[in-house]
Amino acid sequence: MDKTLSSFIEEKKQLVEVELKRYLNTLEVPRRLKDSMLYSLEAGGKRLRPILLLASYKAYGGEGDKALSAAAGLEMVHTYSLIHDDLPAMDDDDLRRGKPTNHKVFDEATAILAGDALLTYSFEIILNDPQLNGEEKLSLTKALSHAAGPAGMVGGQIQDMQAEKNPVTLEELETIHDMKTGELLKFAVYAGAYLANANEKQLGHIQQFAYYLGLIFQVQDDILDVTGEEDKIGKAVGSDQNNEKSTYPKLLGLDGAIDKKYRYVQQAKAALESAGANGTLLESLADFFSERDH
Amino acid sequence: MDKTLSSFIEEKKQLVEVELKRYLNTLEVPRRLKDSMLYSLEAGGKRLRPILLLASYKAYGGEGDKALSAAAGLEMVHTYSLIHDDLPAMDDDDLRRGKPTNHKVFDEATAILAGDALLTYSFEIILNDPQLNGEEKLSLTKALSHAAGPAGMVGGQIQDMQAEKNPVTLEELETIHDMKTGELLKFAVYAGAYLANANEKQLGHIQQFAYYLGLIFQVQDDILDVTGEEDKIGKAVGSDQNNEKSTYPKLLGLDGAIDKKYRYVQQAKAALESAGANGTLLESLADFFSERDH
Repeated sequence: MDKTLSSFIEEKKQLVEVELKRYLNTLEVPRRLKDSMLYSLEAGGKRLRPILLLASYKAYGGEGDKALSAAAGLEMVHTYSLIHDDLPAMDDDDLRRGKPTNHKVFDEATAILAGDALLTYSFEIILNDPQLNGEEKLSLTKALSHAAGPAGMVGGQIQDMQAEKNPVTLEELETIHDMKTGELLKFAVYAGAYLANANEKQLGHIQQFAYYLGLIFQVQDDILDVTGEEDKIGKAVGSDQNNEKSTYPKLLGLDGAIDKKYRYVQQAKAALESAGANGTLLESLADFFSERDH
Repeated sequence: MDKTLSSFIEEKKQLVEVELKRYLNTLEVPRRLKDSMLYSLEAGGKRLRPILLLASYKAYGGEGDKALSAAAGLEMVHTYSLIHDDLPAMDDDDLRRGKPTNHKVFDEATAILAGDALLTYSFEIILNDPQLNGEEKLSLTKALSHAAGPAGMVGGQIQDMQAEKNPVTLEELETIHDMKTGELLKFAVYAGAYLANANEKQLGHIQQFAYYLGLIFQVQDDILDVTGEEDKIGKAVGSDQNNEKSTYPKLLGLDGAIDKKYRYVQQAKAALESAGANGTLLESLADFFSERDH
């Protein structure tokens, strides 16, 4: 990985983790709820979404900590979605990143409520950030509620569940990934660029970039399910092949999926150029998403 | 019931229900998700929270539709909490208001996501209401995220679950009800009064009123569990007595609980007077909460 990128990732990851902990520690709420929220927030993860947000902020010349509450809020929303995803009624996962899932450590009821609490709290921390003015708070929470809501992530979840039973076309697959994963990535780059005073045209193109970034992320996920190493990806290789789920390799073959991925990388970089952010860390992030081995 | 109050309730109930339907119909989201959200929104209910919000708006001289998005958003938050509450991992209820619960009609995964979607969408509709200015949107969403979040409703839920296994004192019981039910009622009166330009002092006292209103609501719930008629309250009489749950009649005896209720009514009315809203529909609502038979 690009050295500037890897040190940026390391630095921002720590920054976000400190921030998440700080937000939870200021919260005076029932012990069990706080423990459960903290458990999942601290259970590791690559912090890709807040890092993307902060990279977008930097790409447009943003300085200081102004984007941190949005970055932390975004990670809370992502974490809530993982907690609910892992529930027995959803994916029924006992492990995430090698650790017991929230409902395994606590119980299902607590896990449902911890997810609900993280989602709600994400809005509260952005709305109470003294570093943001009113207009910024409104723009961020409006974008976040849209990206995380029924027309975004939650809608994508429903469609993803349905797609597990019924094969879908490549176009439908792209729509599902766009809603389920892409909308939060679009929020990430939007929030960063907006807070750094990017203009309307740039805000449009940078979200186009995030759209492709989401697809790169997803096609690489599917590819790793075929070619990855179990101890790196943290789950059994071939798990997608053993169910009815539509994936890029199933629809296009492995070579076709790899070709598709590089086309997405080209499209992401073209969008980045239109957004006036080529040559920044965002460009390195596109390569990183494409080449990651876990 | 007071005639002015009953016609107000009837009128606003219909208004809110039309509004909820309108908000859902403008939503372009996966069919199944929309159906599941709509199912619970349309499954009846007294619409007490939005009615309280609109009564508070009217009490301070508010006119027109300015408070409607907050009223609809509040009902969405309440509905999401009921959907999650009814899940097998929580209260495991098959029926609500005589109809099958959301996860019975759809499935658990869909019910979880429908709840998540309603919570998220409630913020989106307030943030996008063209009738509200930026300051109003910020004040409302800030108050809503606090009332619904870990320090409010969700925190109250966790404590309520824990109290089902371990007996609590009267003081602890009041805290649980304040968080679980009271916070959303405080939001209701706050939002209505704030949008009608009540002053800071009034906003403080009106929330004090809502605090007592929540306790009246809850003690009456406990009393009805002992004295109510099954076909009116929609559940088996005595269901609280058959488990370990702490209730007012268990802690104070039935007569003691009734006394306590009337003391709350007095305190609610005193707060209302300090808030300069005595003699309004809010006063009739306190009596209505206290005397309701279902």
